[in-house]
Amino acid sequence: MKKIEHIGIAVKDIEVSNALFKLLFGKEHYKIEDVESEGVKTSFFKCGPNKIELLQATKDDSPIAKFIEKKGEGIHHIAFAVDDIESEIERLKAEGFQMINNIPKKGADNKIIAFLHPKATNGVLVELCQDIRD
Amino acid sequence: MKKIEHIGIAVKDIEVSNALFKLLFGKEHYKIEDVESEGVKTSFFKCGPNKIELLQATKDDSPIAKFIEKKGEGIHHIAFAVDDIESEIERLKAEGFQMINNIPKKGADNKIIAFLHPKATNGVLVELCQDIRD
Repeated sequence: MKKIEHIGIAVKDIEVSNALFKLLFGKEHYKIEDVESEGVKTSFFKCGPNKIELLQATKDDSPIAKFIEKKGEGIHHIAFAVDDIESEIERLKAEGFQMINNIPKKGADNKIIAFLHPKATNGVLVELCQDIRD
Repeated sequence: MKKIEHIGIAVKDIEVSNALFKLLFGKEHYKIEDVESEGVKTSFFKCGPNKIELLQATKDDSPIAKFIEKKGEGIHHIAFAVDDIESEIERLKAEGFQMINNIPKKGADNKIIAFLHPKATNGVLVELCQDIRD
């Protein structure tokens, strides 16, 4: 794992949170993106080599809606950048980690992603992400 | 804010979690440190330009003990690296953010730190941290 690629933060109202994080970072988000398959609208802020991804549910049954219902707004996941997501999934499975996604899927911001099961990682939802290569 | 300096993760048993995160990252932690004033034992892993800080309570009334009692194990805070913590605190206060620490205090891993109030930041506990200069 090369670095923290981003931290995902579950928010109720992405417009309100965009204004808030703009003040926090002293700069605008660089991107908004709908990820229809996940039922979320995302907004990305850069912070040096890392990013913050705000996540607002666009469907009542999306994972973010369920997270906010259960735990309220707050940090939802940590995503680590990897060079080769397939080999990292194989390495982690061999170490005994349980994956939510055994096969990488398309994520936001031009990435393929896979989540580990948080039961396997101290209650922390961990995402692996790799840039989509041309 | 220059980068995510570290992510703090509240854990019940730091030895168990050290073994787990060693498998996750494929390498050992580089440091263990007791922060007696905060009632925590910490363990640090490097991940490129970022770090993961595991936090285990050493007192029943420490903030980490209360966090785990309320929310269970999981991500506790995000720390952002800043060059000048005093001027960043002043900037954030001028923007209307409420600080937990108006005056920086000594943290783990050779830093001075200050927390923002999570009510002001979408339920996310945000820490500012600056290297202690010689």
